[in-house]
Amino acid sequence: MLPDFDDLSRFRDLLAAAPGADAPARADAEARNGQLTKPPGALGRLEDLAIWYAGWRADPRPRVQAPQVIVFAGNHGVAARGVSAFPAAVTEQMVLNFQAGGAAINQLAAAAGARMDVHALELDRPTADFTQGPAMSEAELVAALRAGWQAVDPQADLLVVGEMGIGNTTAAAAISHALYGGAAADWTGRGTGVADDALALKTRVVEEAVRLHGADGPEGIEVLRRLGGREIAAMAGAIAAARQLRIPVLLDGFICCAAAACLAETRSGALDHALAGHQSAEQAHARLLERLDKAPLLSLGLRLGEGSGGALAIGIVKSALACHSGMATFAEAGVSEG
Amino acid sequence: MLPDFDDLSRFRDLLAAAPGADAPARADAEARNGQLTKPPGALGRLEDLAIWYAGWRADPRPRVQAPQVIVFAGNHGVAARGVSAFPAAVTEQMVLNFQAGGAAINQLAAAAGARMDVHALELDRPTADFTQGPAMSEAELVAALRAGWQAVDPQADLLVVGEMGIGNTTAAAAISHALYGGAAADWTGRGTGVADDALALKTRVVEEAVRLHGADGPEGIEVLRRLGGREIAAMAGAIAAARQLRIPVLLDGFICCAAAACLAETRSGALDHALAGHQSAEQAHARLLERLDKAPLLSLGLRLGEGSGGALAIGIVKSALACHSGMATFAEAGVSEG
Repeated sequence: MLPDFDDLSRFRDLLAAAPGADAPARADAEARNGQLTKPPGALGRLEDLAIWYAGWRADPRPRVQAPQVIVFAGNHGVAARGVSAFPAAVTEQMVLNFQAGGAAINQLAAAAGARMDVHALELDRPTADFTQGPAMSEAELVAALRAGWQAVDPQADLLVVGEMGIGNTTAAAAISHALYGGAAADWTGRGTGVADDALALKTRVVEEAVRLHGADGPEGIEVLRRLGGREIAAMAGAIAAARQLRIPVLLDGFICCAAAACLAETRSGALDHALAGHQSAEQAHARLLERLDKAPLLSLGLRLGEGSGGALAIGIVKSALACHSGMATFAEAGVSEG
Repeated sequence: MLPDFDDLSRFRDLLAAAPGADAPARADAEARNGQLTKPPGALGRLEDLAIWYAGWRADPRPRVQAPQVIVFAGNHGVAARGVSAFPAAVTEQMVLNFQAGGAAINQLAAAAGARMDVHALELDRPTADFTQGPAMSEAELVAALRAGWQAVDPQADLLVVGEMGIGNTTAAAAISHALYGGAAADWTGRGTGVADDALALKTRVVEEAVRLHGADGPEGIEVLRRLGGREIAAMAGAIAAARQLRIPVLLDGFICCAAAACLAETRSGALDHALAGHQSAEQAHARLLERLDKAPLLSLGLRLGEGSGGALAIGIVKSALACHSGMATFAEAGVSEG
């Protein structure tokens, strides 16, 4: 059963009390891995993936059978500053495209055999422009976290969360800059493809925002409230709910990882049930993955968001578990161990 | 219709006359790619993959529906020199494992929705020890090339070839060293996991072999005859047949790429229909991929062979085509182009 929360203090308590992986199942999976008909280690990261997954699912010989992809959409007050190559109306247009099955993530989820859900979060009420004040009130943040929390299917056995929100690489850059320091330019990239002028403006906007909100060293959840957006908070809520349900998570790109970072910087170990599905072409993503200590499974130059890189990696995890749980042992196959 | 050959001269003629990609289909696919509901370039290498595949299939909006994985097995005279961590009997034991469905490649092919075929090539008649003379006669090479050539399903729309053969990383190292020079140690790795002593021996064996066979600068097919093995030649034959049939190929690891290199060093452009499915942990594979000018799709530390890395990459190509052929255009979805 997934517990609930109605304020941030209870949400923080749930993060603190979140369950870990099942050590006996993990040990059994490791033992099984050593008996399979292949030289030791020859399946590389697929072996680590299978053992990790077995621990979280508390099953030494599991399969991935019910992956879920959830796309959250939100609008951002900061978009009015001209930080995106696309108008804010595109957020809603793309939600309709998701609902009609026409977007990249629809194809990628289907190819991965995943259920896909779309949650549009108050698109007619953008968050406040965070260069002027906090993006969200506490009540707004709780509502967005809960939207994500409740969107996770308790029967899912692998989760990918993605996003759509014109302006949200600016929010992700501001979050990352507030959490990890450095310079605004380290965290600010071209997003959907802004030109040089707009990139300079975007960098200034990130700088202003963090000057306003970052000075008192706020922790992760508070950074999320001040600099995030509804879809970013919903992703954080979904990732936290998956932890309660011991559902492994594949992180998507820069914006998804900025959401995840708010959890990690609130509670150490909060992302132990999550792996990096891919490394995006958005320049700051590699830097953020380093901070999260996550090595990406894929690196194919995607920079789309929507959960696309995470969904693409579902097939890798499925294949890892297919090997782990389906292969014969040396004894079963009568193969000499060398 | 797939033509046939009964000598090496005719095989070389077929390589020389092999068809290219369909330029109009490729151009149409490029145009379609520019209209899909995503920022330009946001799907990274998936976009290039889709356009490349569309050209080879002569269809601007194709799907991957009938992938084929073929595993070839052969035994090597050089195995008697003690170059592997496993006894030569394991080749046949693993063939039985493939036939029973218990190996890694069985699980990976099934996870990719691929048909899988296994061809054991005269396992009771190992090739000659190539430190003493040529591994194969011309007739033996032609028979092995034809075994691969005829194993390709003309209805397949994506091909992965893999191998099993105790001792065959030694053969692949010798081939690579003969084709591309450098030092024997540059091309010799631990294979299934030999210890330091055996690695030193293996390196000496590769050095001896290339001293005996490489001095007169033989071209690719002749290198294959002198230093290859039946399963390596069969992979080369299958890759060449796929070209005739315009079936795109995903190359597997070091041994598969050594087979492919024999084609590339016989006829420039012979691998234009092939991409590198992955980069293996076998140290020389990265070097060989550079020589072939192929950037791997995956790099997950696999070093198993069997076609495992190529099969794992099938899902990436399927996903790329699912996006390309399934997504809505900006006009269809009513999304603003920015």
